[in-house]
This record gives sequence, structure tokens and C-alpha cells, in this order.
Amino acid sequence: MDAVDPRLSINQATIKHADLATALRVTAEAGVPAIGLWREPVQAVGLATAAQMLTDSGLRFTTHCRAGFFTMPEGAARRASLDDNRVAIDEAAVLAAAGAPGSTAILVLVAGGLMDGSRDLIGARERVRDAIGELAPHARAAGVTLAIEPLHPMYASDRCVVSTLGQALDIAADFAPEVVGVTVDTFHIWWDPDVLPAIERAGREGRIATYQVCDWKTPLAADVLLSRHYPGDGVIDFGPMTTAVVASGYDRDIEVEIFNEEIWATDPRDAVRRTAAGFASAVSPYLTP
Amino acid sequence: MDAVDPRLSINQATIKHADLATALRVTAEAGVPAIGLWREPVQAVGLATAAQMLTDSGLRFTTHCRAGFFTMPEGAARRASLDDNRVAIDEAAVLAAAGAPGSTAILVLVAGGLMDGSRDLIGARERVRDAIGELAPHARAAGVTLAIEPLHPMYASDRCVVSTLGQALDIAADFAPEVVGVTVDTFHIWWDPDVLPAIERAGREGRIATYQVCDWKTPLAADVLLSRHYPGDGVIDFGPMTTAVVASGYDRDIEVEIFNEEIWATDPRDAVRRTAAGFASAVSPYLTP
Repeated sequence: MDAVDPRLSINQATIKHADLATALRVTAEAGVPAIGLWREPVQAVGLATAAQMLTDSGLRFTTHCRAGFFTMPEGAARRASLDDNRVAIDEAAVLAAAGAPGSTAILVLVAGGLMDGSRDLIGARERVRDAIGELAPHARAAGVTLAIEPLHPMYASDRCVVSTLGQALDIAADFAPEVVGVTVDTFHIWWDPDVLPAIERAGREGRIATYQVCDWKTPLAADVLLSRHYPGDGVIDFGPMTTAVVASGYDRDIEVEIFNEEIWATDPRDAVRRTAAGFASAVSPYLTP
Repeated sequence: MDAVDPRLSINQATIKHADLATALRVTAEAGVPAIGLWREPVQAVGLATAAQMLTDSGLRFTTHCRAGFFTMPEGAARRASLDDNRVAIDEAAVLAAAGAPGSTAILVLVAGGLMDGSRDLIGARERVRDAIGELAPHARAAGVTLAIEPLHPMYASDRCVVSTLGQALDIAADFAPEVVGVTVDTFHIWWDPDVLPAIERAGREGRIATYQVCDWKTPLAADVLLSRHYPGDGVIDFGPMTTAVVASGYDRDIEVEIFNEEIWATDPRDAVRRTAAGFASAVSPYLTP
């Protein structure tokens, strides 16, 4: 077995078709020390069982994916979303406590897009800020950090109205850093002319809740959600961003989260192996100060 | 015939399969007063003939599309690109002189993407700045404004390493505003949390060379280049951006440039009619101060 970076975490989405037991097993068997989980496969076995399975795996838990989707105006749908976000916060706390030492209680938040028929981008962004304000006390009480994830601007209308790291930091600024931070994901922000100053700012403000890496390559998949690639397979230069993250003092695990039909169709053991190899060559060289 | 906005210009790409004669005819017959041309159909008939045809049409000429594509390192390919950009500058000057009074000599520049195998986004951006520096004297002598067009970040790797209006303005800042300006295209920048301050800055600095409108809708076309829609058919709120452009003092024509296979497959007369109708309902209301 090739050397696996001691800070690599497999985000479960990378092996989407593996159930929780399989995901934990192939990750641990590959020598990867950490995992980020998704809500659906956790809920499929039940939270208490999932927590026990995680403990038994010996893996660190890095993030819980994902909650958010609270751009709708006041009403039943918004209340249901906020209630579900509180459940997700509680899940993240339980899983973090069940993971190996070094686990982190982080809930990744994707803001959501415009409601059907709406063109009110500015209003949707205000509602994101309001929602986080409502959730912050619950997150604080649970000891969970909400990690606002800016998504690539190509998802701004239908998935996430938070499009840049700077914008995520502006939202987070109203809250304590241990309660609201940001997700720094190379795929979403690599194009940003301000990406390095924004990472420096995120570090200075203590907001980097999680660092995630995967690669960008064109042509994009027909479903642009599924265009993420193994580190090193695309055009992202992981050096400057990783160096900036390291320089900020971020010393925790780094997730690889890939949505890609072709990768999902492979044996999850192969996907984990390819992930570890890509990470080792494209990212690890920049992790040593 | 419904009323056509007196500031509407049809960008020839909207009726891509029409040759120059057809494009000029259907635009004029629809009562649209202005047109933006593309190099290929102009060159297909020859510049002098194209200029005469433009004069005969009675239309104003708004922009020449497009040049740029100069992210390559020093060498023959870069020299060839810069030479071709100089030809494009000269074409723009001739066409602007041939158009009806109120025509403008504007050359739209798309920077180009990463070279094959390159991950040097920062270097590519520096080479864009250098290229514009080389072209500026020629543009000044020809009386042509180079209009740097930031393209949506989903094109950053393969088409245009200039991704935000702010970044375009930072490049333009080295030059006189009548020589280097920016293209403000709603499709490319609508998602930007800083779009309104950036438009205000562009106006304050005298850099808005051309304002272009079309709409954004998901799911994106399988070829994401072809995802542009008639104004009003998507999710862009044209009010705030158009109001900001008007407030900046911009009082010239406004182009609609659409890349869309379905629209290209329609009769160009229908496409022009639909464009005029979409513009009248989605954009015109914001043009009266």
C-alpha cells in the first residue's frame, strides 16, 4: 500500500454508492485516518448505530454534510428547513463525539438557490444570513461549528446564493468563529482573483472550519454538479491555496469530496486508493511548512 | 410591429446562422436601430464590402466581436494573436466609421483560458495585462476602445481567465479610459455579490465601453457556452444592474448577445422579434432615469 497522507479525510460523497458500513470499512482499510459523512447514509442506519459504527471504525470524523437550504421566505417550508438544520447540528455533535480523537464537530451549510419564479438574489442572501442567525445559538449550545460553503457561481441560481469566500466571510463576521466558519473548497473558489487574500482573511479571522480539495476540468459534465475530479486530474494549482491555508494555522484534516458519475461507478476501494494517490501527489507536498 | 427600444442593438451572435446581409436586413426591418458584428461574417464578405453594407443598412454599429485570446507565453502563437488583434482593431475602426451616426468603435476582448497542460492561472492573467499593454498604442491610434469582457467563472479555465468586473477594471486601470474599458454583460456577472459596487466603480472610472444583456437559466445547456437566454426568460433581475449602468451616465446602445442552439435554429426574424420583446419588457423599464 502506498503511503497515505496522515491528514487525508475521505468525504463520503466520493464513494456515494457505498453504504455507511462499506464507506467506513474501505476508508479504514486503505489506511485513511478520517472520514466526512453525509446525512442520508447516517440516517439510513440511525444516528446511534452510525455513531457506534464510526467509533468501531477508529476513524476521525471531520464534517457532517450537509444542511442549509434556507433561502425561502418566512413560512412553513422555512420553519421545516430550520428545524431540520437543528437536527443536523445535533447529528454532527453526536458523530464528532463518536469519532476518534481529533474529530471535529462541523456542519457544512449550502445556502440554497433562488426559489422557483424568484429573481430576488439579494433577498435570498439576506435570508441566508437570517437563518444562520437563528441557528447559531443551537450550534453554540451543541458545540458545533457551522461551515458556510461558498459554491461556484455556476450554482448561484439553483443551489447556493453564496458564491465567494469573501461573501461567506462577510456573513460569518456577525458570529463567533467557533460557531460560524467557512468551508474552503478548491473546486468552488480556485478561479477567484481574490482567493488568496480571502483565504488569508479567513485564517486571520479564525474562520477556516474545513479545507476540501478536488480538481476542475473541462468540458464540464452535462450535469455540472458532477464535474469534480481527483486532485491532480485537472487544472487547479493546489500549491498557492494550500500554502495559504497552512499559513493560516489550519492543521486539521483535509477532505476530498468528489461528485463524479464515472468515479461513483468504480469500486469504492479503487476510488479511495485513487483519492489517496492524487492527494499525495497534488496536495501533500504543500502541507509541510 | 411592437415598439422597439431605441437603444437596442442586436449582437450578430444572437442570429449566428444569418450571414452579414441577412443579419443587417432582419435587424433593420425589425426596426432595431443598431447592430454589433462578429469578425467571421465580416471577413466572409471582406471588410470594405462589409462596411458598405453596414452604411447601406442605416444601422448604428455598436461593437466588434471579438478579439483577445492572448494568454499564451511569448512565442509565435502569441505574436500571431497580437497581430490578429491589431487587425481586429482596424476592422472595428472601419466599421464604426461606416455605421450610422452614434456608432462606436469598440472591440470586445475575451482574454483566453489556460494553455493545454498549464495550471498557471496567475501567470495567464499577467499575460493578459501585458497583451493589452502591447495593443493599447494601436487602439489609441485607431480611435478604438478595447473592452475587456469578464466571463462567468465557469469559463475561467478554457476561455477567459478574467472572471469578475472588478478584475477587468483592475487591468484597465493602467490605461486611459478611452483606450481600455470593460464589457458589462449581465449573464457573466449577475451572481457577483460585488456587482453593483463594481458597476458603480466602472462608471466612476469611465470604463463602461458597452452594456450587454441576456438571461441566465438552469439547467445549463450541456455545452455551457450555449446557456444564454432572451432577457426575461431566466432568473436575472435586470433592474439593479441596469439602474446602476444608467446612473453611471452610460447613454449608448445596449446589445443583446445570445448563444443558444434553440434560438439559432429559429428564423432570424423571429429571434430578433423575440429579442426586442424581451428587451422591452425586462430592460427598457429601467432605462428612463
